[in-house]
Amino acid sequence: MYLTQGLRRAQQIRPAGGSTVFRTRRRTWTETTERVARIAGGLAAAGVRRGDRIAILALNSDHYYELMYAIPWLGAAMVPVNTRLAAPEIQYILEDAGACALFIDGAMKGHLPLLAGRMPTVKAVFYLDDDEPPEGVKPFEELVSAPALEDAGAGGDTLAGLFYTGGTTGKSKGVMLSHNNLVWNAMNAIAGIYFDSETTYIHSGPMFHLADGASTFGVTACGGVHVFVPRFDPVDCLEMIQREKVTHGQYVPTMINMLANHPRVREYDVSSLRYILYGASPMPEGVLRKALEIFPGCQFIHAYGMTEAAPILTLLPPRYTTLDGPYAGRIKSCGLAAHTAELKIVDENRREVPRGTTGEVAARGPMMMLGYWNKPGETAAVLENGWYYSGDAAYMDEEGFVFIVDRLKDMIISGGENVYSAEVENAISLMPGVAEVAVIGIPDARWGETIHAVIVPRQGASLTAEGVIAHCRSQIAGYKCPRSVEFRDSPLPLSGAGKVLKRELREPFWKGYDKRVN
Amino acid sequence: MYLTQGLRRAQQIRPAGGSTVFRTRRRTWTETTERVARIAGGLAAAGVRRGDRIAILALNSDHYYELMYAIPWLGAAMVPVNTRLAAPEIQYILEDAGACALFIDGAMKGHLPLLAGRMPTVKAVFYLDDDEPPEGVKPFEELVSAPALEDAGAGGDTLAGLFYTGGTTGKSKGVMLSHNNLVWNAMNAIAGIYFDSETTYIHSGPMFHLADGASTFGVTACGGVHVFVPRFDPVDCLEMIQREKVTHGQYVPTMINMLANHPRVREYDVSSLRYILYGASPMPEGVLRKALEIFPGCQFIHAYGMTEAAPILTLLPPRYTTLDGPYAGRIKSCGLAAHTAELKIVDENRREVPRGTTGEVAARGPMMMLGYWNKPGETAAVLENGWYYSGDAAYMDEEGFVFIVDRLKDMIISGGENVYSAEVENAISLMPGVAEVAVIGIPDARWGETIHAVIVPRQGASLTAEGVIAHCRSQIAGYKCPRSVEFRDSPLPLSGAGKVLKRELREPFWKGYDKRVN
Repeated sequence: MYLTQGLRRAQQIRPAGGSTVFRTRRRTWTETTERVARIAGGLAAAGVRRGDRIAILALNSDHYYELMYAIPWLGAAMVPVNTRLAAPEIQYILEDAGACALFIDGAMKGHLPLLAGRMPTVKAVFYLDDDEPPEGVKPFEELVSAPALEDAGAGGDTLAGLFYTGGTTGKSKGVMLSHNNLVWNAMNAIAGIYFDSETTYIHSGPMFHLADGASTFGVTACGGVHVFVPRFDPVDCLEMIQREKVTHGQYVPTMINMLANHPRVREYDVSSLRYILYGASPMPEGVLRKALEIFPGCQFIHAYGMTEAAPILTLLPPRYTTLDGPYAGRIKSCGLAAHTAELKIVDENRREVPRGTTGEVAARGPMMMLGYWNKPGETAAVLENGWYYSGDAAYMDEEGFVFIVDRLKDMIISGGENVYSAEVENAISLMPGVAEVAVIGIPDARWGETIHAVIVPRQGASLTAEGVIAHCRSQIAGYKCPRSVEFRDSPLPLSGAGKVLKRELREPFWKGYDKRVN
Repeated sequence: MYLTQGLRRAQQIRPAGGSTVFRTRRRTWTETTERVARIAGGLAAAGVRRGDRIAILALNSDHYYELMYAIPWLGAAMVPVNTRLAAPEIQYILEDAGACALFIDGAMKGHLPLLAGRMPTVKAVFYLDDDEPPEGVKPFEELVSAPALEDAGAGGDTLAGLFYTGGTTGKSKGVMLSHNNLVWNAMNAIAGIYFDSETTYIHSGPMFHLADGASTFGVTACGGVHVFVPRFDPVDCLEMIQREKVTHGQYVPTMINMLANHPRVREYDVSSLRYILYGASPMPEGVLRKALEIFPGCQFIHAYGMTEAAPILTLLPPRYTTLDGPYAGRIKSCGLAAHTAELKIVDENRREVPRGTTGEVAARGPMMMLGYWNKPGETAAVLENGWYYSGDAAYMDEEGFVFIVDRLKDMIISGGENVYSAEVENAISLMPGVAEVAVIGIPDARWGETIHAVIVPRQGASLTAEGVIAHCRSQIAGYKCPRSVEFRDSPLPLSGAGKVLKRELREPFWKGYDKRVN
């Protein structure tokens, strides 16, 4: 299977229909397909060959999207880079991937002086924005003026991209995904998120992350419309949803929280929204209740996955995101195995555990990564006999619904008891005054670790540590309740994917200890 | 990808939910999965090995369905045999496939005496029905009593089955389909026919034909319910639709015609029906109008494909099966390329033709067959550079909608003009008194061929040749109108897939000629 087949299908079935919308720039599928073939031609003229890696360091845009097809069209592999990284981390990825070209935009160009002379494999740098490129950097539209290249016909198990995970440390790993991996995922996305030719999808999470990529290739194969905002901003999103009659969006719970609680949310007509996919971390019940209230015409689909799975592993059919009726009771589940995924929950010896028992999520399927780039040891640690071992703690109920309990590494061991931080966070999020919460383990001489809550209160709310602890005691077992509570007035630190960076929260407590920071 | 993964998924997400319903026999997904593993174990105990071929000659049943999973579970290949064949034709297939075992049912057991001693590769014969098996034939439930076999793990490009086409002649070819082929098709089916865990699908077309198989594997992967009738019978179908609240069915137009015009159709509650897939031949407009009237709560999805494509190539989204509104005008199209299909229309030199020009349908995609079994020459004739050349005449409009014009071999060349029989049939079917119609070319000294219509009138209708020809003149160009008309009071001869056997209609006219019978 060819990743580019989806693009050709879009062009065949909606040649004059909208393909991309970025600010005021609109294109049709015929225009986009022609541009992709020309960009591929321009890259070939610049010396890029089949199998080469090409890095992209940029905020969201239609140009970014065009690259995600032009690169595989040429038979090369895309390397989207996390925009939150510092220059040495970017340098590490460029070198690790052996990237031969780099695409950068205005928001990221500040890194160029720091990277100068430190990207030995990069032969050419291109500028994705429309203003004057920095010195030595080539304008994007120069590529587009090249003669169109015929599709190189790369497909199947050929590498389509390297997607770096854990990008906030120098040790990030390049997940190798093939054309087949990404197309199988696209088919799971189409079947489970209900994309069709009338879909208008807003890219509001970062495009460098496959949480957004999960939808990119599926929406294209359906001939839907792609709407881009450069980065997540509640007002930008609401405006584009209203203006472009967006039908599908994808947000991490932190973003949904920010949208649903935005003071101006009721000024916008968001009635076109049909489906919001959410994932990357469990949705606190309080946030979900608010979102169901603010977006009443919209159904919510919980997804769970990881870059290694290209990325969707589970989807919760939207009828289960309900608080009453025959489908109630599964709202905290991330859903059922995606159509082509096999899932099991295993113990520390990788043996399947009974339903209802918490263990590690293991998965198999044709969307599973080829491995980590140049890291056979790390690959062997997680891939065994076709199964991928995720490091996520979860249980499965009798009907196959998966309930993610925690990242195994976020599990707190206090006095020999396993405490899953997500469970404590969920309890705390039910308090009306809580805007954001993260729960971590901190060192304790007696218990090994004790439970510590970091809370950002809503404006005007008055919370106390005692009140939070008392609330928890009414919700969960005593040993799971925080022993200490900390209030902050600035948002919690987030990864590019919108997950709270618990590493950063843990760091000050664990200085001088060997473990628990990462 | 493993074909059996869909079965395991069904068992995981609906363990106690219904899997199969045959007459009064009902099973759950846990029961079916266990039975499949045991049947595979029984086959292994009987000496069947990975890669072996196992033939099935039977009417529809839950047992047939179980075999369609037990055989790939074992790593062997299924060989469903057309139940309309005569013993020498069956013998040819068993020998060509080198089948090591044969499953047969009560309806087919009459062939056994004729086959005795003529199936040198067949080591064991099993009986699918519950009554006493014929002598020397083993009962099905003997297999089921074997210890369960672990899934052999066959998948990917491994052969999952040989599906014989053109089975009404001794020259039928075994289409080799892999696990991947069938699973890609299943994903296209799920995305385009809207199967989900609440689907109840009725197998009313013959299971030996992939027109039904198109849905089998997709419905399973969703954990839907399979309802079986032994063979198509309008009353049986209507009764099962009512009793089992069937949501999805699949019929060729001839069957829809028989259902919609059945005198008792209004006695049944068919309101559970959501989608009817139709295909195998174009739907005459008169039939479609009647079906839309009889099944008002149901949407119709036109599909087009062939065994070689595992089988779906195009699907018409149901909103286009309408006579008015913004989506009207595409009702005669068989739809858009399936999600993973690439389609083009080519001339006799296999070069793509402009939109709107009639040519041959060519297709590419991961569901395309591995080739014809032991027939490299025939394979090379239709597969070239990854593209399959179908022999079907069609054009594509500006938005990718495909309009099948005819089988190229059913095209009539009269006085140098190409006449597509389907167009003439469509015109004739609009006459109220016409129940069935087929149009063929018959030899003519002056024009090469002239156009001949064979019509089965509705009961009580009085049609005349002159009336039919006059009606055609009001609908289509003069050179396309029949020169002769023949009326019959018995149904037209049909293939197992429900297509009119034009070969049989042509035969008496072309005796003594070299061409045009097949």
